[in-house]
Order: sequence, then structure tokens, then C-alpha cells
Amino acid sequence: MTDSHGKVRTTVEIYGEKYTIVGDKSHQHILEVSKLVDEKMNEIKGMNTYLDTKRLAVLTAVNIVNDYVMIKKELEDLKKKRREEE
Amino acid sequence: MTDSHGKVRTTVEIYGEKYTIVGDKSHQHILEVSKLVDEKMNEIKGMNTYLDTKRLAVLTAVNIVNDYVMIKKELEDLKKKRREEE
Repeated sequence: MTDSHGKVRTTVEIYGEKYTIVGDKSHQHILEVSKLVDEKMNEIKGMNTYLDTKRLAVLTAVNIVNDYVMIKKELEDLKKKRREEE
Repeated sequence: MTDSHGKVRTTVEIYGEKYTIVGDKSHQHILEVSKLVDEKMNEIKGMNTYLDTKRLAVLTAVNIVNDYVMIKKELEDLKKKRREEE
């Protein structure tokens, strides 16, 4: 659904709860992203069965930022290499 | 602290709660990653003051996966371009 301000509203289910995400991304993109979060939460829960959902969600965020920081470094290194090659 | 299995244990505070992260990353890296999660949670809370911490943490994870997916695409495009140039 797109509202009068051109924003896309997508309702997703993550770890058994519904969330409505509003932004400029397509439904397809938001569904894909939400599926990744849900999968990661289930993966981390599998390794730490005692975690409540709040702490599980925070640790999931930590885990994803870790991946993000590493991939960002890889991207920056590659960009630097390209500049050096020019 | 490094335990007998060579794993690094780092205790961090995120959004007012303590978490002990165990893994092969340095304290410095874990502190940096945790700071980013804390900042992002505060940023999203500022835009959605009614959110409870659990939902806030899930939405923070969604937000970060979104950034991750975009940067990963950028990295893949750049790698593809490099292969084509060779």
C-alpha cells in the first residue's frame, strides 16, 4: 500500500509479532529484509535458549551490525584499490 | 578477557542493559559495534516514542539489515565490474 505522501506501508511478521514498516522501499525489499531478521533471531535463539525476546532482538542487532561493519570495510578496501589502480 | 578456548568475552551496555558478547572479535571491535546498535536504537526511539524496547530492538535490526542488504549489493556490483574490466 502506498499512502498519500508516496510512502510504502508494508506489514510483516517477525518472530511472531506484526510490524508495519513505512518508507520508500518496495514491499518485496521489506519482506526480504524482515525474513532475514526473523531467520537471524531464530538462529541466535537456537544457540541461547534462555534469552528473552528483547535481549534476543538486541543481540540480533549486534550480530547484524558486526556483519555490516565487516562488509563495509571490504567495500571501502575495494574502492581504495580501484582508486589506486586508476 | 580471553577464556581457555581462546574466545574473547566483552561486556557492553546497550540501551541501558548489560550484554556479554563471546566470540573471536577484539574488545575494540565489539565496543564499536555495540555503540552503533545503541545509537541506532536511540535514533529509532526518537522517531517512535511509543515503542517498547523489544519492538524497538526488532525494528533496529530491520533497519540495519536494510543498510546491510544495500551495501552488500553495492559490493557485489563493484566486484562484478572489476571482473568485467579484467
